[in-house]
Order: sequence, then structure tokens, then C-alpha cells
Amino acid sequence: MKIDGRHYVTIWINEGKTVSIIDQTKLPHQLNIVELKTLYDAEFAIKTMQVRGAPLIGITAAYGISFQCLADAQDTALKQAAERLIATRPTAVNLKWAVNIMLDKLLQTPTDKRFQVAFEKASYLAHEDIKLSESIGEHGADLLNDMYKKKGKSGAVNVLTHCNAGWLATVDWGTALAPIYKAHDLGIPVHVWVDETRPRNQGASLTAFELKSQGIPHTVIVDNAGGHLMQHGLVDICIVGADRVSAKGDVCNKVGTYLKALAAKDNHIPFYAAMPYSTIDWSITDGVRDIPIEERDSKEVTHIYGKNESGEMQQIQLTPDDTRALNIGFDVTPNTLITGLITEKGLISPSMTALKSMYHNEKTKEVSNAV
Amino acid sequence: MKIDGRHYVTIWINEGKTVSIIDQTKLPHQLNIVELKTLYDAEFAIKTMQVRGAPLIGITAAYGISFQCLADAQDTALKQAAERLIATRPTAVNLKWAVNIMLDKLLQTPTDKRFQVAFEKASYLAHEDIKLSESIGEHGADLLNDMYKKKGKSGAVNVLTHCNAGWLATVDWGTALAPIYKAHDLGIPVHVWVDETRPRNQGASLTAFELKSQGIPHTVIVDNAGGHLMQHGLVDICIVGADRVSAKGDVCNKVGTYLKALAAKDNHIPFYAAMPYSTIDWSITDGVRDIPIEERDSKEVTHIYGKNESGEMQQIQLTPDDTRALNIGFDVTPNTLITGLITEKGLISPSMTALKSMYHNEKTKEVSNAV
Repeated sequence: MKIDGRHYVTIWINEGKTVSIIDQTKLPHQLNIVELKTLYDAEFAIKTMQVRGAPLIGITAAYGISFQCLADAQDTALKQAAERLIATRPTAVNLKWAVNIMLDKLLQTPTDKRFQVAFEKASYLAHEDIKLSESIGEHGADLLNDMYKKKGKSGAVNVLTHCNAGWLATVDWGTALAPIYKAHDLGIPVHVWVDETRPRNQGASLTAFELKSQGIPHTVIVDNAGGHLMQHGLVDICIVGADRVSAKGDVCNKVGTYLKALAAKDNHIPFYAAMPYSTIDWSITDGVRDIPIEERDSKEVTHIYGKNESGEMQQIQLTPDDTRALNIGFDVTPNTLITGLITEKGLISPSMTALKSMYHNEKTKEVSNAV
Repeated sequence: MKIDGRHYVTIWINEGKTVSIIDQTKLPHQLNIVELKTLYDAEFAIKTMQVRGAPLIGITAAYGISFQCLADAQDTALKQAAERLIATRPTAVNLKWAVNIMLDKLLQTPTDKRFQVAFEKASYLAHEDIKLSESIGEHGADLLNDMYKKKGKSGAVNVLTHCNAGWLATVDWGTALAPIYKAHDLGIPVHVWVDETRPRNQGASLTAFELKSQGIPHTVIVDNAGGHLMQHGLVDICIVGADRVSAKGDVCNKVGTYLKALAAKDNHIPFYAAMPYSTIDWSITDGVRDIPIEERDSKEVTHIYGKNESGEMQQIQLTPDDTRALNIGFDVTPNTLITGLITEKGLISPSMTALKSMYHNEKTKEVSNAV
């Protein structure tokens, strides 16, 4: 997508087989490009959230494994690298998915060819991610078009979204925001309610930045406000991303998603999660009980970053000194609150039957084997 | 209650018949005392939220009317002053309640006696507010004690609260926090989950400050986190304050309250609102439809104040430049999601029958007539 009229993806290959990323911790105030050349660089970028979003951290980790092949391509080293990468963020399953695909491929490859194969595989996954996001966008745009028609084509379709599941969370296009971009391109008027998404404010910073750059009408609200808007008919549909979806369609996403899903249900507003197949964790059925939830540094709650009057990034303290805080990164919305999943294959009902029938045996046959 | 071991109320009389308040916009980082001597001072203090909380703004407005009597005690001037004060904050009904009590009394009083009568009446209302809060605290502490027993007296009772309905929102003791203070005094162990309460963060600043000062264990969380905590058995009860309660028990309170009430219902956790009789608006039945909701400056969403590294208060910008934001101050939780109301008369079921039966004809006979 575009920044100041110029096309970007979130991660791209440089000559000399390094990759570049946009440092998302500096957005929307600064556009900093960071080069990754080592496993450590990739690990650091994921850990510090220079890159974030379930699909994008998977791709970044895949490149991280490639870089490890340059340093030491032996089985043990690769397995250790895989473990380190998977440990950086425990909730988003796409990370594990991508790392395991890389590892499976490389352990069957002669050591001296591993870097070449790994780098190609990572860039294939990145390329595939764009296609998946585009498909999600097309299916979601159909849904938005239906809503627009249902409204008698009068006024914009009001979409509420939580956190950032836009192009910055993937390689391009996004998951939850892809339908909005595709609908916008088709001339369907959309207005987005952007939850700021405390504590890290990915909505107020990244989603607002994306929508502004693409020229899509939007309004930032605090996370507390969505329920009131839904009670008063100001939201037509909710679309969020996902960090992990259980085999029966429970949706783990940025903390606070569950509260919005409850409000949507209470006000008869459709609630969708948009994600590619790599976000499904077939090994977990009861998402609320079993999906591991990342707990992050409490300083993300007690302190906050922003731009000061001199235009510099600055941190300020919100709570009294030495206040104890708990920073839960995600929550799980049970499938009973989800209207449907917007996937690369179309809309799917959030049930084990529907998911299995849509993906039949693909859970074992990874698409990536095509490389 | 106490700050650094010294007893304070939120508003007190000075010699020379002025009043002092704690400037709550500077808490928790600075303890600034501000003197009010004119109608304008009172209006400014309410508008800029130096004082906030439904009961406290009522008392501050009552003093504001008194000060007007010094400047011009004629009927027209007093009626204009009343209108100006009521217009400062449209949602909290205690403001209108207090101003109308003052006006009714003064219009029956000879002009030359009005200041004296007004000042006495305002200080009576302040005194009564403390008694109301204490009674709320005692009834609520019984409830917490029951929960403690139900837990087999093992571990603390985990209370989740939203915004600040502590002593800083009243003259002393508070509404939602009064039960916690009374329970703590009785030796019942309580731990409080403090919603930070964006956009103005009255939880992270004021509630955390109060609880720290009183030595009550607490943990600050972002507003998004409560649902997850409730799903995982970490919340025993929710207690919030109220800015206006409809005749059938719908609760208008700080925006985001409705989302927590939905999560409490979904997880079978009792959800209470604590408030004195002056918060009931007998003229409104359907709270969701009819309670007026204050919309505040969008800059409260796009920018935030806190303490910088030099210990100074500083504002930073959270969103991209020129981002549109909407700042809804309150929402209304329908009575179907409320377990009960904790009032000065005890627990009341959120229904018109129960409210009318508890207050029978008191809605017409104001307690304040006793002065």
C-alpha cells in the first residue's frame, strides 16, 4: 500500500540478500527503515515490535531462519534458532507455522544449499502472504458491498475495527483492513471506527496512519466507546484480525476484542475475524481455555509514547510512581460471538465442521510445499 | 480520606467563606490546592475537571451559587448562574439536582440573607454527601464480606472498577470505592483491578492514587483487559459509580462501563453500581435512549498528559497529525445487566418497582429540606 503516494510493502529484499522493514514502533510520527541481516536482527525486530501482526512476524521469522543458515546451517543451530524465534511471541501461531515450514524444508536440504533454499522459501512465503491478503480483501469487499446494498446505498458502511490488522500487520493489503481497501477501490463508501487499542495503541497509531495514507474516512475512538456506538446504530459491522483461531473457530486477537464481540452480539451487529489459513491452530479446540496468552511488560500500561511539541518521540508516565500493572496482550472470543471468518477461501462459519470441510485435509498438506 | 497520612476531603470551607478544592487534573503527580471564590471559579473548576465525579460537581455547583449571591443575589442573576452551572456538564444529574435545590431555597429567601443561607445550604449538602457515601460504603462492605465468606475466607475479594468513583468523586469516602474502604477497615482482604479508563485515565491516575494512599492492594489494567480476567475467574465482583440512573435502574456511567457489564453477565459475575439517591433521574425511564451523553473535546483522545522524565506534567500526541477523533464521555448500561444498586438505603434491585418502593415518595420530598 502507499505512504505519501509511494508504494511500500512491510518487508522487502535488498541486494546482497538482506531484508528491510519499516520500524513500526516509530509510526505514525517517523518513517524509519531498518535492515535485517542476522537471526538476532529478526529476533530483535519481532520482540521489540518493530514488526508485529501475526502474518508479518511469521514472514520475518522465516527470513531470520535464512540468516541463521549463513552463520551456521547445521541442524542443531537451526533448531535452536527456531526455538528462539518461536519464543519471542507466544500467542500468534503464524510465527510457529512459518518457522516450522522453514525447518522442515531445511532439514531435508544439504547444508551447503540451505541459505539459498531458505531465502527463496521465505520470499515465497512473503509473496504468498500478499496473495492470501488480497483474497481475504476480495471476499470481505463482497460482504461490505452486500451491506452497502442493504443500506439502500445511502451513506457509508460503518466498520469498527480493533488494533491493527492492516497492511502493516502482513506483507501487504492486511487481513481486517484488506476488505476495506478493496471496497474503497470498488467505489463502496466506507467509514472506519478505529479503536485506539491500548496499551500499545496500534489503532490510534498504525490503523489511523494506514487509513489516512489510503484516503479512507475514519475516526479514532477510545476502546471504551464502541459499545455506545453500537447501541446507537453507528456501527454496521465489526471486522478484526486474529493471532490464532482454534479448530472450532474461537478467535484469539488483541486484548479487548472479546468486549467488542459481546457488544456486537448484544446489538445484533455482525462480527467477523479476517485471517489466512496459517492462523488456524488445528491442535487447539477450546480457544478460551487453551490458547497461550502473552503477558507483556507492565511499563506498556504505566507509561506511553507519543510525539511532544518539538516533534520528538517521548515517553510519559500515566500512573502514580511504583504502581503495579498487568499487561495481558490478547483475549479469546468464543465462536458463539463470531458471525464468520473471512479467509482467503471465502466466508467460513466459526465451527469445526465448517473449518474442516473448507480446509478438508489441507491442514496436513501445507500450501507452501508447492515451492 | 488520607493523602500521605493526612486527612483530606475534596472540598472544604476557608475562613472568609471561600472554599478550597484539590485540582484533580494534576493528580497523581502534583497535589495542588485551588481556592474558589466566585461563580466563575466554580464553573471553571467543573468545566476543566479540576473537580469531577457526579456528587462532587453537585456540591461545587452549590458553592458556586452561593458565591453568585455575593456578586448579585437577584432572582434573574441566580437563575442565570444556575443555567450556566447546569450547562457545564450535561450528563451527571447530581449537578442539576444540587443547583435546583439551591435555587428553590434561595428564591424563597430575602435577597439580603441569600448568601448566608446559600453558603449554609451548600455546606449542609457537602456534609450530607459524606454521610451518604459512608452509608453506601457500609452496605457495600456487607456485600464484600458475604463474598469473602463465600470464597471460604481464602484469598482477597477481587473487585473490578471502572473510572474513579472514590472519595475524590465525592466529598469523602466515595461511591464505588466506599465499600472497599469500609471492608478494608473491617479487615476483609480486597484486591482491586483498576481500569485505566481512557481517555482521561481517571482510573490509572485517581483511583490508583487513592488506593495507594489508603494502602489497598490494586493492579492497573487497560480498559481492554477486564473481559479476559473475567473469563479466567480473576474477578469476583464489579462495582462502578454512576452519573445518572434512570427510574428503572439503567446506569449511565463513564464510557466503557457497558462493555464490562456485558462481560460480567457473560461470565456470571455480579455487577453493581453504587450511588446516592441524588443520582436517580425520576424523569427518565429508558436510560439508553434518553440520558443525554456528553461529547468532549477530541483532543482528549488524540493527546494525553503524564509525567515526563524531569517530573513535569507534559502532553504528547498519540495519533497522526490532524486525525479525526470522537470523544463520547459516558454510556448507559441497561438494567438487565445490573445485579443491583448499592445505595445509602442498602441494596436495591435495578427495577422501577424496587426503586419506587425504596424511595416511595421521597423523590418529591428532598432530604435537604431538613435544613
